[in-house]
Amino acid sequence: MNPTPATTSGAPAILHREMPAALLKALSARFVDAFSAALVVREQHGRDESSFSVPPPDAVVFAHSTRDVVDAVKLAAQFKVPVIPFGIGSSLEGHLLAVQGGLSLDLSRMNQVLSINAEDLTVTVQPGVTRKQLNDAVKSTGLFFPIDPGADATLGGMTATRASGTNAVRYGTMRENVLALEVVTAQGEVIRTGTRAKKSSAGYDLTRLLVGSEGTLGVITEITVKLYPLPEAVMAATCSFESLADAVNTTILIIQLGVPIARCELLDANTVRIVNAHSKLALREGVMLLMEFHGSPASVQEQVQTVQEIAADQGGQAFEWANTPEERTRLWTARHNAYFAGVQSRPGCKAITTDTCVPISGLADALLDSVLEAQHSGLPYFMVGHVGDGNFHMGYLIDPEQPAERELAEQLNQQLVHRALKLGGTCTGEHGIGLHKMDFLVAETGAGAVAMMRAIKQALDPDNIMNPGKIFSL
Amino acid sequence: MNPTPATTSGAPAILHREMPAALLKALSARFVDAFSAALVVREQHGRDESSFSVPPPDAVVFAHSTRDVVDAVKLAAQFKVPVIPFGIGSSLEGHLLAVQGGLSLDLSRMNQVLSINAEDLTVTVQPGVTRKQLNDAVKSTGLFFPIDPGADATLGGMTATRASGTNAVRYGTMRENVLALEVVTAQGEVIRTGTRAKKSSAGYDLTRLLVGSEGTLGVITEITVKLYPLPEAVMAATCSFESLADAVNTTILIIQLGVPIARCELLDANTVRIVNAHSKLALREGVMLLMEFHGSPASVQEQVQTVQEIAADQGGQAFEWANTPEERTRLWTARHNAYFAGVQSRPGCKAITTDTCVPISGLADALLDSVLEAQHSGLPYFMVGHVGDGNFHMGYLIDPEQPAERELAEQLNQQLVHRALKLGGTCTGEHGIGLHKMDFLVAETGAGAVAMMRAIKQALDPDNIMNPGKIFSL
Repeated sequence: MNPTPATTSGAPAILHREMPAALLKALSARFVDAFSAALVVREQHGRDESSFSVPPPDAVVFAHSTRDVVDAVKLAAQFKVPVIPFGIGSSLEGHLLAVQGGLSLDLSRMNQVLSINAEDLTVTVQPGVTRKQLNDAVKSTGLFFPIDPGADATLGGMTATRASGTNAVRYGTMRENVLALEVVTAQGEVIRTGTRAKKSSAGYDLTRLLVGSEGTLGVITEITVKLYPLPEAVMAATCSFESLADAVNTTILIIQLGVPIARCELLDANTVRIVNAHSKLALREGVMLLMEFHGSPASVQEQVQTVQEIAADQGGQAFEWANTPEERTRLWTARHNAYFAGVQSRPGCKAITTDTCVPISGLADALLDSVLEAQHSGLPYFMVGHVGDGNFHMGYLIDPEQPAERELAEQLNQQLVHRALKLGGTCTGEHGIGLHKMDFLVAETGAGAVAMMRAIKQALDPDNIMNPGKIFSL
Repeated sequence: MNPTPATTSGAPAILHREMPAALLKALSARFVDAFSAALVVREQHGRDESSFSVPPPDAVVFAHSTRDVVDAVKLAAQFKVPVIPFGIGSSLEGHLLAVQGGLSLDLSRMNQVLSINAEDLTVTVQPGVTRKQLNDAVKSTGLFFPIDPGADATLGGMTATRASGTNAVRYGTMRENVLALEVVTAQGEVIRTGTRAKKSSAGYDLTRLLVGSEGTLGVITEITVKLYPLPEAVMAATCSFESLADAVNTTILIIQLGVPIARCELLDANTVRIVNAHSKLALREGVMLLMEFHGSPASVQEQVQTVQEIAADQGGQAFEWANTPEERTRLWTARHNAYFAGVQSRPGCKAITTDTCVPISGLADALLDSVLEAQHSGLPYFMVGHVGDGNFHMGYLIDPEQPAERELAEQLNQQLVHRALKLGGTCTGEHGIGLHKMDFLVAETGAGAVAMMRAIKQALDPDNIMNPGKIFSL
């Protein structure tokens, strides 16, 4: 019961709270077939895409309704047992791991699109709806939802981690795109935050407090997000560069000139090779920007012309166009799968993924040395970046059986994060704090701000049952 | 000491807490000339643009630095005396009124632009900087700050009320444009929230919790906001319509088609008359949309063509263009002064201002009946709307000596707000809750969400010294 403190370099702190037999019995009675304490089900809910291994949760409930969530949370609250919301398990930061034991609350069956309000450019969904499912559901309206993390994540998970993806440079992140929520509090009460109006000054912005709260303040049971008209014209291209510096400088100029580029992604040569191998593509194996332009035909032409001029000035090769929707889909699917391509490039490895985001003028300083350090370390790695936002990911591919590799990766990670913080950036652009970045959070925002976060957590969840052990170290 | 409860229709609840002589002495000793208990100074800090009259604060401190704010808050906290941050006094909702007595903390002398980071499209300012001052300061960089409430408000006040204005339809509100804050907490501690990075998933979004918190969670002492490249091309036009319905339907179609219009403002015929008289303009005296288009020359042309077609289909007259920067400035200055024009159109009156915002499809339902009701009531009024956002303001011009007029205005206000809430909207798009919309807040978001807000307030300000009596009724 004496926990190891969580650190950014070590294993997560594990502090098992016993699940009382009376709670198991009550959950089983209430949820019947939607309850499981079987090891195989618990293990499915006891891992994510992070590099950590911890014991699985003590039980799993599959919620089908807000009522189910209320009842599960109230039972857990009665016994002061942790509740860990679960979507599809694609967290990179250990959000889903039961570091204090407890109940995994699987929301994947709450997967209804509740109402499409095309005339208002909004849609309301249950938390288990995935981003691809949502876009299929709204396709016939001529609208789309732009936020696209690599995985086909659930809207609940994306909301809880303040996710973004390749389109954020133009359309913003979950922070800008969630309008309203239904949430079950730590006391099992159902509250609503926000409205479908585009703006509001009505009291504290609980919506945005809950977006990115990583399951620590309540369980999200309904989400209203913005939709956008499908652009009249879409053009996508790749452009290769001699050096990372040239590609980064191209990106910086695109953003500083205010080009409303829809996607601006960077891969280094090593990662292009990995992506080609995984997705059976034949992209030119050098440093590469992947870009997409949205707008009216005239606006897209203007954007393309401006960006071509900037790229040429920086020594970029001619654009290679993805001319058909199918080619575009192939290109972006390959980009979305870059993480999986990276992990599969070293059989048996785990990825330790970084997620710094810096003001655009600091992008070259943040990125170039980090890639050099990875190359010099000898560790296999991949590098992909939402560089238009100043955000990029290194994935250090470690053998989990080799502690020295983990240590080396964590050392590279530390150097990279502290470089970003010095540049006025953040340790995490879109993945969240989870188990892995608690110390970085303190370094970034200061003890005072973290104390304010803790005070809010304590006020809303005094028994610390909502996804405990995440965001805050013990 | 037995407070009248605050209601949306009645006078604000006043609960005077005595200012101890020892505190007055300590403040005077610490702040010397920057402290005043003179009635004339207190009265200057005891009114705003709301329709309420309450006794002035007990003392005023003019802060010149974060250190000053810390010391003033710590002294007030020691005696559990209220602290009311003050900018230029342009609140429409009684935010600045000392309903529980206490110290008015005037931040208008903290008016330095601290750092312009043009290459990152960000700027950091002290809270007393006004929106016009900020735009003057960044003019030479080719960038601008778009958020523009009617008054030349301070950035501190705009942050605290989650303000917006005419450009929000394209550029968002303070919610989307504040990146980072320095805040002095109720305990007198200095914390920093956010970074200059464009996006972040680092813990709870304290920045957005504080944006719109109306001074109730802390004193904002530094603000980092986004800037935007000045558009290459700008065109502004007015278009008259036969009926309000035609103008509203034009607006709805513009938004639903995704036209990236920069400004889309509605005035009814009565208000155009008032604005003409006040600003010595000769706008055609009918229902009018005021519009502005930003972008590349080709993009602006496309937008104009689309909007002209939509307007013509709805019976709109030909566009009248504001062709020069001076004409545009004159037009938008007149629009910004509409509130003052309204108030001056009835000598001695006070305005009770509404601020509902609805999903765009409900705009006609929300607006048309409200204007009809105002016309039928016989009360003088004005109506201006940021209709591209679904947000509009009725200003009921009451004689403050006639309780029946206030009652009538409040009744119209109630009808209007409940109509907006039924349409999925909010009681306040940009002015805040203040003293006047507490009951509406509960009707809008429910008792559960308000209880969560109160729990946060209680956790961060247990002695309720930060602008008490605002947002929450006693």
